[in-house]
Amino acid sequence: MPEMQVNPWEVKGDIDYDKLVQEFGVQKISPNLIEKLSKKNKLHPLLKRNFYFAHRDLDLILQDAEKKKPFYLYTGRAPSGAMHLGHLFSFMMTKWLQESFNVNAYIQIPDEEKFLAKKELSLEEIDKWSEDNILEIIALGFNPDKTFVFQDREFAGKMFEPAVKIAKKITFSTAKAVFGFNNETNIGWIFYPAMQNVPCFFEKNRCLIPCALDQDPYWRIQRDIAESFGYYKTATILSKFFPPLTGVKGKMSSSEQGESILLTDSEEAVKNKINKYAFSGGQATSEEQKQKGANLEVDVSFQWLNMFFEEDDKKIKEIGEAYSSGAMLTGEIKQILIKKINAFLSKHQLAKRKAKKQLNEFKYSGKLAKKMWKTEIMK
Amino acid sequence: MPEMQVNPWEVKGDIDYDKLVQEFGVQKISPNLIEKLSKKNKLHPLLKRNFYFAHRDLDLILQDAEKKKPFYLYTGRAPSGAMHLGHLFSFMMTKWLQESFNVNAYIQIPDEEKFLAKKELSLEEIDKWSEDNILEIIALGFNPDKTFVFQDREFAGKMFEPAVKIAKKITFSTAKAVFGFNNETNIGWIFYPAMQNVPCFFEKNRCLIPCALDQDPYWRIQRDIAESFGYYKTATILSKFFPPLTGVKGKMSSSEQGESILLTDSEEAVKNKINKYAFSGGQATSEEQKQKGANLEVDVSFQWLNMFFEEDDKKIKEIGEAYSSGAMLTGEIKQILIKKINAFLSKHQLAKRKAKKQLNEFKYSGKLAKKMWKTEIMK
Repeated sequence: MPEMQVNPWEVKGDIDYDKLVQEFGVQKISPNLIEKLSKKNKLHPLLKRNFYFAHRDLDLILQDAEKKKPFYLYTGRAPSGAMHLGHLFSFMMTKWLQESFNVNAYIQIPDEEKFLAKKELSLEEIDKWSEDNILEIIALGFNPDKTFVFQDREFAGKMFEPAVKIAKKITFSTAKAVFGFNNETNIGWIFYPAMQNVPCFFEKNRCLIPCALDQDPYWRIQRDIAESFGYYKTATILSKFFPPLTGVKGKMSSSEQGESILLTDSEEAVKNKINKYAFSGGQATSEEQKQKGANLEVDVSFQWLNMFFEEDDKKIKEIGEAYSSGAMLTGEIKQILIKKINAFLSKHQLAKRKAKKQLNEFKYSGKLAKKMWKTEIMK
Repeated sequence: MPEMQVNPWEVKGDIDYDKLVQEFGVQKISPNLIEKLSKKNKLHPLLKRNFYFAHRDLDLILQDAEKKKPFYLYTGRAPSGAMHLGHLFSFMMTKWLQESFNVNAYIQIPDEEKFLAKKELSLEEIDKWSEDNILEIIALGFNPDKTFVFQDREFAGKMFEPAVKIAKKITFSTAKAVFGFNNETNIGWIFYPAMQNVPCFFEKNRCLIPCALDQDPYWRIQRDIAESFGYYKTATILSKFFPPLTGVKGKMSSSEQGESILLTDSEEAVKNKINKYAFSGGQATSEEQKQKGANLEVDVSFQWLNMFFEEDDKKIKEIGEAYSSGAMLTGEIKQILIKKINAFLSKHQLAKRKAKKQLNEFKYSGKLAKKMWKTEIMK
């Protein structure tokens, strides 16, 4: 069995989340915090089903909210290709939090990051994906007057000075430890952590970042230096890793063939991918399945339904019982998942087409966007 | 005797320029090139007296010029304090070259560099010096329609993307070797070489940088990557090190007390500094001096007169003969130098006061400045 390996650039092996919570030194989201969140809005499935399960300073964020003190949200996406389902969750969480607390959200599109990190990738290739990825994101329905979407290269005039201030406080040693840099890393990528930290200083209010647990070390850098600038340490709300189709191990990756459902996939493609690749916890034959039932813990279809796609608590319980007892076959649970995903994607793809009209608002003309193009950051 | 040490962050010991030319792999400026230069304009004392003595690709620059193909000039100044005489020479050379060839000049004010390099230095402190330093520079009389003065933090919106392209091609190893970085260097300073390289890509024409020999390694980075972008390798015209008042060793530095004549010094201050600190190659007593004469090679007053302040070939020859033979005393040669410096400074200080009115032209409204604020660099 491969050893568990979790750092910001690699998630591999069997994940022991309790161990990770300890190792990373983060907190689990307590029932008390869940209770508070559920009072603001109908609990999002990703919270209800414990996909978002850990945090730093989420309690302080909620304290601020109780005192009517605003906080703000920050998330992002480095464009280098088509987005898959797994990419969407942090944005869904962000959107839900924005809706629940009526707060600002900043969405960074670091259109230099992957260029710097990947030898063969060109800026032209990235630029092809930037707009597409932004549309996938704003299709989720963010508030156009409280959301600012910015591309690093375009917004660099505003970001460079704060990045320089931040960079002065980050040594190569630190960046090396957190990002896995070495002597052959190029000096642009080495600078990138500073650019990534800038949005944590967009407001004097507390910043909350929804992300996967493996991204936590990035924000630890910010937490180490934030107070020296008179800013808050960034809070995070941390998710588990969305499992790849081929097995409940590691993190879904678009770079490995067949392991991901793209947001642009057709109904047919979804059907074929799930049928062909979704790792089954069921038995080899129908007879065996009827006798022994499925192992839900490793069954990707069940996990996906449970994490997100089957929102109805009663239904997911029934599915789990039927499938684990053998009353339901692998082919049947896959059918359920295929339907759910296709329903989701058809709605999403329509929203994406409509989102084109809103692009300008999120980037330039919305209330928050307009303000940010005039603001001096960290001044 | 201290060993010679020359790299971009340190110049110490007795300088053997012939050895350096070999070590750095640069060319001496040949009589043939001097001849070509003198045909364009009255030879500048800094060239005539061999203060600018070496180069890379200056021959190709002059070939371009002969074919009426434009080249351009690039130089700069990292503001962190008052400027001294030694700081002015590369700008004088640039100005002379601009005048002689009627070409564009780009003057970078990297107002993030020293902030990143010096722990205690604040951006506020730097900003206090930026405008002052720019005025010192433009006081030399650059062509306001062919000169663009830009501050990195302000111009970052234009520079970031090209810097990212350049940075991708520079590994930490390379930057470390050239700039003396180590694991404790902050990631902003590590990125800085990319920002410094950007102006070498401002035009598709050949770029010529007047600078001191110790700065040559910076531009070697550009020369290694230039052609992969379809640009020319940057050419340099390289100077010796302007000796500090206290002795003809190393490079003049404003950080060591008494070793420099500031551009803002009063006549009185110049007189006192030269009399007190200018290292003398003369003998201990007037009697001894009359007998043995002075050693011109180590005499700072003679060296300064020879390098720049006594433009008249006949006069400098007479001074050298009188002083080395003992007919002239140390006090007398110091008097000559004091007069020359004060004449220079009084003219310069007046020009600086007048330069205020031109600031806007060099930064924004001059022909070249205007163009640069609209240009997409490296596209």
